[in-house]
Amino acid sequence: MTIEPGFMRRIAAAAAEETLPRFRQSGLVDNKLTSGFDPVTEADRMAEQAIRALIRATYPEHGIHGEEFGLENESARYQWVIDPIDGTRSFISGMPLWGTLVGLTDNGDAVAGMMSQPFIGELFWCDGKNSHYEGPHGSKQIATSKVVDVADATLCTTTPSMFTGERKVAYDRLESAVKLARYGTDCYAYAMLAAGNVDLVVETGLQPYDIIALIPIIEQAGGVITTWDGGPAEQAGDIVAAATPELHAAAVKLLQG
Amino acid sequence: MTIEPGFMRRIAAAAAEETLPRFRQSGLVDNKLTSGFDPVTEADRMAEQAIRALIRATYPEHGIHGEEFGLENESARYQWVIDPIDGTRSFISGMPLWGTLVGLTDNGDAVAGMMSQPFIGELFWCDGKNSHYEGPHGSKQIATSKVVDVADATLCTTTPSMFTGERKVAYDRLESAVKLARYGTDCYAYAMLAAGNVDLVVETGLQPYDIIALIPIIEQAGGVITTWDGGPAEQAGDIVAAATPELHAAAVKLLQG
Repeated sequence: MTIEPGFMRRIAAAAAEETLPRFRQSGLVDNKLTSGFDPVTEADRMAEQAIRALIRATYPEHGIHGEEFGLENESARYQWVIDPIDGTRSFISGMPLWGTLVGLTDNGDAVAGMMSQPFIGELFWCDGKNSHYEGPHGSKQIATSKVVDVADATLCTTTPSMFTGERKVAYDRLESAVKLARYGTDCYAYAMLAAGNVDLVVETGLQPYDIIALIPIIEQAGGVITTWDGGPAEQAGDIVAAATPELHAAAVKLLQG
Repeated sequence: MTIEPGFMRRIAAAAAEETLPRFRQSGLVDNKLTSGFDPVTEADRMAEQAIRALIRATYPEHGIHGEEFGLENESARYQWVIDPIDGTRSFISGMPLWGTLVGLTDNGDAVAGMMSQPFIGELFWCDGKNSHYEGPHGSKQIATSKVVDVADATLCTTTPSMFTGERKVAYDRLESAVKLARYGTDCYAYAMLAAGNVDLVVETGLQPYDIIALIPIIEQAGGVITTWDGGPAEQAGDIVAAATPELHAAAVKLLQG
């Protein structure tokens, strides 16, 4: 099943109507958890409702799994997986590195996806064969970099503080081997990996809605994305994404120690 | 002396002509230092030349101090201080958080400045009394947040790895007291502070061209920016910028231990 770009653009536009007016405003943050800091905004909830309405109207037989409102029609072959605002910490800090993520699975395999950054006006998506970019300065097909050696790689992760215990040791082993490490990137890092600007993204503790949309965009751009132990990235959890199969294998080896 | 917004926009446009065509391209990075990773791009050099030409033509009696090409007319009362691309690591990673910084000092005191992020199409500047924002979704006067307690503050720093020894202890003491810490932000963090989206920025090892342009934008938006020991921020080095005088005092106290 292929989803035409027009539908991805409509999803992005519907979400943007809810997110953009609330970006860089104050007084919109409340805490999902009483302990820790897990912000969720009205924008998150309203955008997911808008995306769900569009999917229901267009693909009524499909299932939907969203961050904010859970599952519907969960036995369907096709499942839409939604994170209305990935990078809520970026969102509440005014940083334009958050994104709206919508992916599609076919019997659990991620086959289509989009990432939209509406403040900048960027859309990353894939057509079943290739990955594409639309932005304020033009559109183009995108591909991952040709980097194969860890020593030549730029690595992104949202924050090194997400790693603890053995994972911290494993992450530090990889980070100390790369050319450059960048933090604070959320979903934007995966988009930059698909576009050839960074070479590795390593994270932990991800939910399916954090990563499903990004899997086919990376794969159809030429990259490889799995769990740290080489399993399907659709499982979420510990994720390693790389520009090339060689770089992926080298990163997995360092993570496994 | 007041610099009219038209001149700031012309500087931003001239720099963007050199930076934008080279953003998200490959093969443009070389290393300034043989050890470590200090990338500088052709975009950096070309943009500084373009900015210098515009300043020389408009204010021939003024001095210029740029990151790439050093000092000219250094005994003049007015000095323009240029960082053509602040955040070269963001630039080479495709992240739109780098900026072109141009500030003006009067006998060493920063009195005017602009930060331009041309990929998004944003300009932050100040007119001698107030600070302003122009972007893809409109223009507005900007002001810092009203946050006074460290426990309510969002803190930004480019990377926690910039702090070592006693500075690392001091930074960690502050970071552990804030609500949220964000990394990877470069000059964009100071712009977000001026616009009320984040509340604290703490860094070390800054050069004057990293900070001069941002000082008046923060001050004219209502914020306070000094060195960690309360000295003039124009000295650069260890910098702490805060949304309010109360928050600044509290952050300085934590940094001083």
